[in-house]
Amino acid sequence: MDHPLIGLPIEDLDTPTLLLDGPACDRNVRRMAEFFRDRACRLRPHFKNHKCTALAHRQQQAGFTVGFTCAKLGEAEVLAAAGIRDLLIANQVVGRRKTARLIELAGRADLTVAVDHPEQIAALSEAASGAGVTVGVLVEVDVGMGRCGVAPGEPALELARLVVGRPGLRFRGLQAYEGHVVYQTDFDERARQVREAMRHALETRKLIEDRGIEVAAVSGGATSTYRITGALDGVDEIQAGTYPTMDWRYRQNAPEFEVALSILARVISRRAGLAVLDVGAKGVGSDFGPPRVKGYDVEIRLPLSEEHCIVRNAPDWPLGQTVELLPSHACTTCNLYRAMVVHADGRVADVWPIEGSGRLQ
Amino acid sequence: MDHPLIGLPIEDLDTPTLLLDGPACDRNVRRMAEFFRDRACRLRPHFKNHKCTALAHRQQQAGFTVGFTCAKLGEAEVLAAAGIRDLLIANQVVGRRKTARLIELAGRADLTVAVDHPEQIAALSEAASGAGVTVGVLVEVDVGMGRCGVAPGEPALELARLVVGRPGLRFRGLQAYEGHVVYQTDFDERARQVREAMRHALETRKLIEDRGIEVAAVSGGATSTYRITGALDGVDEIQAGTYPTMDWRYRQNAPEFEVALSILARVISRRAGLAVLDVGAKGVGSDFGPPRVKGYDVEIRLPLSEEHCIVRNAPDWPLGQTVELLPSHACTTCNLYRAMVVHADGRVADVWPIEGSGRLQ
Repeated sequence: MDHPLIGLPIEDLDTPTLLLDGPACDRNVRRMAEFFRDRACRLRPHFKNHKCTALAHRQQQAGFTVGFTCAKLGEAEVLAAAGIRDLLIANQVVGRRKTARLIELAGRADLTVAVDHPEQIAALSEAASGAGVTVGVLVEVDVGMGRCGVAPGEPALELARLVVGRPGLRFRGLQAYEGHVVYQTDFDERARQVREAMRHALETRKLIEDRGIEVAAVSGGATSTYRITGALDGVDEIQAGTYPTMDWRYRQNAPEFEVALSILARVISRRAGLAVLDVGAKGVGSDFGPPRVKGYDVEIRLPLSEEHCIVRNAPDWPLGQTVELLPSHACTTCNLYRAMVVHADGRVADVWPIEGSGRLQ
Repeated sequence: MDHPLIGLPIEDLDTPTLLLDGPACDRNVRRMAEFFRDRACRLRPHFKNHKCTALAHRQQQAGFTVGFTCAKLGEAEVLAAAGIRDLLIANQVVGRRKTARLIELAGRADLTVAVDHPEQIAALSEAASGAGVTVGVLVEVDVGMGRCGVAPGEPALELARLVVGRPGLRFRGLQAYEGHVVYQTDFDERARQVREAMRHALETRKLIEDRGIEVAAVSGGATSTYRITGALDGVDEIQAGTYPTMDWRYRQNAPEFEVALSILARVISRRAGLAVLDVGAKGVGSDFGPPRVKGYDVEIRLPLSEEHCIVRNAPDWPLGQTVELLPSHACTTCNLYRAMVVHADGRVADVWPIEGSGRLQ
């Protein structure tokens, strides 16, 4: 049955509401897919951006994808329930109960997980072989981000050797995320830094292959680096996440995509030069800066109130006026909502549940 | 039926999990209630802190409360569904559809809402009288926070006069939140600033009463000011929110309460001097600073990754080690979870749904 909001003018919606400009999102999705048309490299979109399976299906239908990337086991469970079966968890899954859940999921999906520690490999192997399933494994290489992963070269080779031939595990290659350079605003400098970072992964690939171990995939990349990382010989998968929704901050580095995500907010209090909107830190991610107001050059200062944005130098908005806030960070924003309202031509076109919202485990 | 996690040692839980130290929370709740034992002033706890009705019932059972405070209509709907009927929405509710929802709720709860604009009063009155219900109204006075509310004195009196006798509305008094001084760390200086701020509300009360209009309630206050604001003659209700859960930042200003809230996190990657935990900006509110690690003097820098905290100068935690993170902001943290795990003596004692999580409208 159609959702009761369909057809409503968006300015009539209760606020705050998470909005997605349907046509803009479609253009973003098609544009990214087209980059991969004549390449060996494939797109493995990162689900963490929006956590919405309806949107994930659109990404898949646009073509040139090879499954999805997830940040968490819970996200992979959501995608599997929606029928998407080639799943990479690009992080370490640690802990007895969570490993058991991962093995259960591996029984009904083509599941790959990142590892960076011998103990993690041993625990995965024991659980997978005990259950009679096979889990794909990427050894995570730290290419400069300084978060997870082992050092490139010999330490990565050593882990790959630990995986190869281990019961219940299948060595698939390397996870290598150049996350420390994705926000470099100058494209040429970013390209230089990306190549320098990914060189570590590609040299490690060669080292492993030289020892006769097959590397099916080197997986990495982002919305701001896909044109660089995705053009490198030896990179097989790009894990871009933000491109369908975008946000104002990331658009500075990927201007070919449109900001399709916004939060509809309403003026609930006002006085000369100041307007208060009914959304705050609980309704818009501000970890990368304050939101902007679409179409207006106004200032919102941090920290936000929990349920209010205070707009300085506000124009003459009447009480009840709706505005669209453009978030600085799409991923932490989508995580705050249970659904996104898809709109076209100023009206509600659809309502998509965000099934992965709050799936942190 | 008992929740299947009950009895489990907390270190066996999947991570991240929102934890509440049950006995510590009970002590916080009792301590706050006791302050009101021999006073005319009453406690109207702010639900926005935890949004959990099981905890709200405990606050009510501890006594000396007069209903609950909510930030949003959606929170009030959650409390009403849980049988708590005296509800104050301490913000402006604006918009046709939302006003209709408010009126619907007023038909099954004793509902009061803050106003600060003639148009809002007119819209509320029209909707309430049309539906044959009565909505309580507090005129919000800006006592220095510079967010919502009208100026004290004549402007507030003018709004009160607009409410009095208006069909469907019942003038109840003044909303006056001294939010701009609640984080002043020096108690004596805070007390001075609170008295200065609340003086505006109390003088406005007198002005309105002098015109023959009954003021049933002046409502305001917070966890860090209840001892000051709650002792002022003419303040009737204290809207403290954070005291049941607390967080490390607010505890600096209210050390009589214990930090009962934490996030169980797990070490999922480590190298010399650095450990990576499996919770980030999507699992802990960092709008007031990074979380702290309970029992350890270590550093977590901002911005957090979405799903990782990087702990510098980490001790020799093994892979899989669980630690408890103490959030800087309990309210934005609880909003990220669907449930809190209540623990006592290191084991799960109960699991409480956070029904108001994500209820932003």
